[in-house]
Amino acid sequence: MSRYFSRKYEKLIPYTPGEQPEEKKYIKLNTNESPFPPSDRAREYANEAAKSLNLYPDPECRELNKKMADTLKVDEDQILMTNGSDEILNFAFMAFCDNDHKAVFPDITYGFYSVFAQLNNVPYEQIPLKDDFTIDINDYIGINKTIFIANPNAPTAIFLKPEEIEKILASNPDNVVVIDEAYVDFGAKSCVPLINKYDNLLVTQTFSKSRSMAGARLGFGVASKEIIKDLNTVKYSTNPYNINKMTMAAGLGTLEDEEYTINNCKRIIENREYTKNELLRLGFELTDSSTNFVFAKHPKIDAKRLYLELKEKEILVRHFDKERISSYNRITIGTHEEMETLVNTLKSILEEKA
Amino acid sequence: MSRYFSRKYEKLIPYTPGEQPEEKKYIKLNTNESPFPPSDRAREYANEAAKSLNLYPDPECRELNKKMADTLKVDEDQILMTNGSDEILNFAFMAFCDNDHKAVFPDITYGFYSVFAQLNNVPYEQIPLKDDFTIDINDYIGINKTIFIANPNAPTAIFLKPEEIEKILASNPDNVVVIDEAYVDFGAKSCVPLINKYDNLLVTQTFSKSRSMAGARLGFGVASKEIIKDLNTVKYSTNPYNINKMTMAAGLGTLEDEEYTINNCKRIIENREYTKNELLRLGFELTDSSTNFVFAKHPKIDAKRLYLELKEKEILVRHFDKERISSYNRITIGTHEEMETLVNTLKSILEEKA
Repeated sequence: MSRYFSRKYEKLIPYTPGEQPEEKKYIKLNTNESPFPPSDRAREYANEAAKSLNLYPDPECRELNKKMADTLKVDEDQILMTNGSDEILNFAFMAFCDNDHKAVFPDITYGFYSVFAQLNNVPYEQIPLKDDFTIDINDYIGINKTIFIANPNAPTAIFLKPEEIEKILASNPDNVVVIDEAYVDFGAKSCVPLINKYDNLLVTQTFSKSRSMAGARLGFGVASKEIIKDLNTVKYSTNPYNINKMTMAAGLGTLEDEEYTINNCKRIIENREYTKNELLRLGFELTDSSTNFVFAKHPKIDAKRLYLELKEKEILVRHFDKERISSYNRITIGTHEEMETLVNTLKSILEEKA
Repeated sequence: MSRYFSRKYEKLIPYTPGEQPEEKKYIKLNTNESPFPPSDRAREYANEAAKSLNLYPDPECRELNKKMADTLKVDEDQILMTNGSDEILNFAFMAFCDNDHKAVFPDITYGFYSVFAQLNNVPYEQIPLKDDFTIDINDYIGINKTIFIANPNAPTAIFLKPEEIEKILASNPDNVVVIDEAYVDFGAKSCVPLINKYDNLLVTQTFSKSRSMAGARLGFGVASKEIIKDLNTVKYSTNPYNINKMTMAAGLGTLEDEEYTINNCKRIIENREYTKNELLRLGFELTDSSTNFVFAKHPKIDAKRLYLELKEKEILVRHFDKERISSYNRITIGTHEEMETLVNTLKSILEEKA
């Protein structure tokens, strides 16, 4: 750090995103991207928007907001679009956490939560998941803190039912509960229908996974209009034109082509079930995944070593050097062909060890 | 604000961007956009990038950084690309301002600086411009604070020479001096060549004005590699994938087509000189503009009223309800045809008053 850097960030350790190699040689199963390209309509709309890049985008994102409101059956002022869901998550830490509203989240979850807390100088607490990596909701009942729960959770892939989340919402009426649904579209159930029942609920989602738009950076929050208004205050004090024209247009195209997204999700779920079965046959232990990835460990091979061997063989998966989960790898579900290659490669690696 | 909103933002008043009407009927001279579309190459590259939106963008922005480094004749690690220059400005407030490093900037300048200071809970001071709206550099000599200077300044359009800025840099070695060069390409002179001489200098620029990419959201900072490293720490703790693929690609295309940008700037400067002459003939008083806008007042008509009458006649300019400048309008330089329409419309409005 330079001698000019504010001392308040002295201990800040930034988030480390998954590897994004420039060369195309890898089968990329490390950052939970969709293996399918964006819908044709998304691409066409983006291309059209690129013609008038000289003009600013609509800071209010009116057209996209309206379409999303129709899709989710909520009001337009209950939505805020952001530059990826990382942005809305950071806004939530900014808006709803402080010394009087400590942040709390599981010890094993999206690694960015603790970074956001540190960035915003917010005191935070990490509640251990149970041994089987599920959340014990009793840990969150009436705790009077701002709660962040990724649901399904990452990298564990495990889903918590909205009925359980309701108990957390009802018992913390004076604090915002953020449900981060980045992976909700692969067989889990969304809490969006609860936003009119609980004015302390903020649901965040992303176009990066099920909607094949990781490269476009588009996320959003859904909540009561009062919460959205607060988040807009933060947005207009940070970056009013946070979403560029092409992404805004691609988002609209994607929403107009929901059938495409739904079909892709179906295929990914099929590929996941295939992968789970094959990995179980190879002796892997898996959590119960409701996402576009599996979380897998093998009793006979060190996870870090497996990650490195796969990388050697041009397959990228993600390994976290973190207590409790260092024996696992997180493997994104790609196309059927990619998963077959993965399975065969794992087979040969395990055979070599035998 | 909701009852959940952190009290730290109780007094935060967000930035108000210029109007972005959905209807196309207006001649838009209110947000300093370029009247020219992006270069063909920018568009082609963006279209190509849209094909693989399912994959995350390169968080390190390597290709674009390299091209920009070549263009500016600096090293790759002396550049950070951001989601518009608002993002790098906010990062600078975060990284280099705190209770020990008060922020300071002119009383009349980009309105976002005071918002960033408030957002980040940074104490700040506004130093009045002289009566002629120029900066008295003596006000900034040895003040031991983090200095933000838009150069050319907005909305005054006035340019301060790098030789003068050097005096500020040299006399504040323990504080970062941010030179915001959003409008530098319309006849002013950049401080980028000074970054290897002053390790406390951060220059910010944008693709929104001269490079016809306001809709793409692309800005950047140039500084010593130590300062860029600090800003990267903030970026990777905020939004590692801050720039989407299409924008990154469009930026590269634009840089490969510098001739196009240079020609557009020439045309805008010609249109500006035409507009200045015509407005002077109509009795307007103007500051000495080195930007793609003019800052104009007329002794015989109230500026707010003029703004409204122009809007009525489908021409949008920008009026700021702010002390010292409420008698002015800021008028973006558009195409020659647009400026002719503006001049003729002003003529008829003034004739009506006569």
